[in-house]
Amino acid sequence: MIQVVKAGGKVLDDPALLAAFCRDFAAMPGPKVLVHGGGALAGRVQEALGIPPVKYEGRRVTDDETLKVVTMVYAGWCNKQMVALLQKEGCDAIGLAGCDGSVVTAARRAPKTLSDGRTVDFGWVGDVTPASVRADFLLRLLGAGLTPVLCAINHDGAGHLLNTNADTVAASVAAALGASLTTCFEKAGVLADPEDPATVIPTIDPDNYAALKASGIVSEGMIPKLDQAFDALGKGAAKVRICHSSALLSDIGTTVILK
Amino acid sequence: MIQVVKAGGKVLDDPALLAAFCRDFAAMPGPKVLVHGGGALAGRVQEALGIPPVKYEGRRVTDDETLKVVTMVYAGWCNKQMVALLQKEGCDAIGLAGCDGSVVTAARRAPKTLSDGRTVDFGWVGDVTPASVRADFLLRLLGAGLTPVLCAINHDGAGHLLNTNADTVAASVAAALGASLTTCFEKAGVLADPEDPATVIPTIDPDNYAALKASGIVSEGMIPKLDQAFDALGKGAAKVRICHSSALLSDIGTTVILK
Repeated sequence: MIQVVKAGGKVLDDPALLAAFCRDFAAMPGPKVLVHGGGALAGRVQEALGIPPVKYEGRRVTDDETLKVVTMVYAGWCNKQMVALLQKEGCDAIGLAGCDGSVVTAARRAPKTLSDGRTVDFGWVGDVTPASVRADFLLRLLGAGLTPVLCAINHDGAGHLLNTNADTVAASVAAALGASLTTCFEKAGVLADPEDPATVIPTIDPDNYAALKASGIVSEGMIPKLDQAFDALGKGAAKVRICHSSALLSDIGTTVILK
Repeated sequence: MIQVVKAGGKVLDDPALLAAFCRDFAAMPGPKVLVHGGGALAGRVQEALGIPPVKYEGRRVTDDETLKVVTMVYAGWCNKQMVALLQKEGCDAIGLAGCDGSVVTAARRAPKTLSDGRTVDFGWVGDVTPASVRADFLLRLLGAGLTPVLCAINHDGAGHLLNTNADTVAASVAAALGASLTTCFEKAGVLADPEDPATVIPTIDPDNYAALKASGIVSEGMIPKLDQAFDALGKGAAKVRICHSSALLSDIGTTVILK
């Protein structure tokens, strides 16, 4: 089965973690795809260039200059640095943005009208679905022994690059390929006690998810991650695991199932 | 025959020129590869980030921070922007740095000892030859109907990205593929009178090249370009043309032949 791995942003901020993560990912047997975010570098570059960051509901508003920065950082430095490290480890990686072979298209997000009548335009921000993934292209690359490494810079097919969400890209690619999805982040999994890494909840299905939410054990930050996991499973992903970036080669983590 | 085109840096600095160039390139029939440099953006980003540019004999000295900037600008913004525009024009482009599929490796340039005993270390700068091009990989992409778009960020295979010269990359790729090479720049070709674009010298071979150099008609800036053209032909390129960025679909320009 094809494995899709989403690398957490924190991994990209720490050279030693990044090298270890790339070693582990390269050692995973079988066909695989890596999807990555951008870490803290984009914010630092944006600040250095004097572009004020604008956010709305946690999402970056992407004007012309911000698009340039995120494309440079995600599709340029982060993507090529990871690919070079994977090649060193013997993994025949190929770094792609969505425009490359039109592997992932995105629809530009429509401006949103607020209750007070103001309109928020997210700028060059796009949304990705499993239908916007060119699965046959990825399968051809995998068939040739290559490992696609995708950033979350995609395009609208009409000449514009679009900034999209890396978690959604990973879930969409996994769903489009019927692949298993491993989402790596800085915790050991979904924890019953957020302060205790030994309390990983091994399996979450829709029933205990409802109970975990009702009891407040699953908190704010984990809800979108779990909703996305269930969404990916509903759309065709074979399996979802949420685990620490250092746990790629182990079984430790939370497996999300539909039942 | 495969056609390799080197896009001039000036094209990347002007959105209207870039759009026209991408339209023309997309309209070229048959298998083709695009190689591009970076234009003025890298210098602007470097300055904005407060990294002092260091040059030696016209070549940028590439320290850690400078490597980050050129990778962001060349492999990120320039490459993905061109690919998105080509996709819009119906050209199934795929943007690659040398690390992607290990398509172009480079050897890190050895430090140079000067006559006064000082040593100049160019940093993360590499040199590319036709032997460092993975021709079978490019042929497979071309065979699948894809158009590779290469920047001049390559890698050493040991985990390090290297900044290389885009003209050399284009010449090496053309030689490795036995392709024709079209080098675009801001003049109509090699001019007998540098001020008069109507004085394009249609053909240069080793004999008239010697005469043109002796008479001073071929000046400083053109000599490396012509030396590189002869070198590419000697190493296996089928044909070399030097022309204006707007002349891709015409025959106007200087053809360089071995005789």
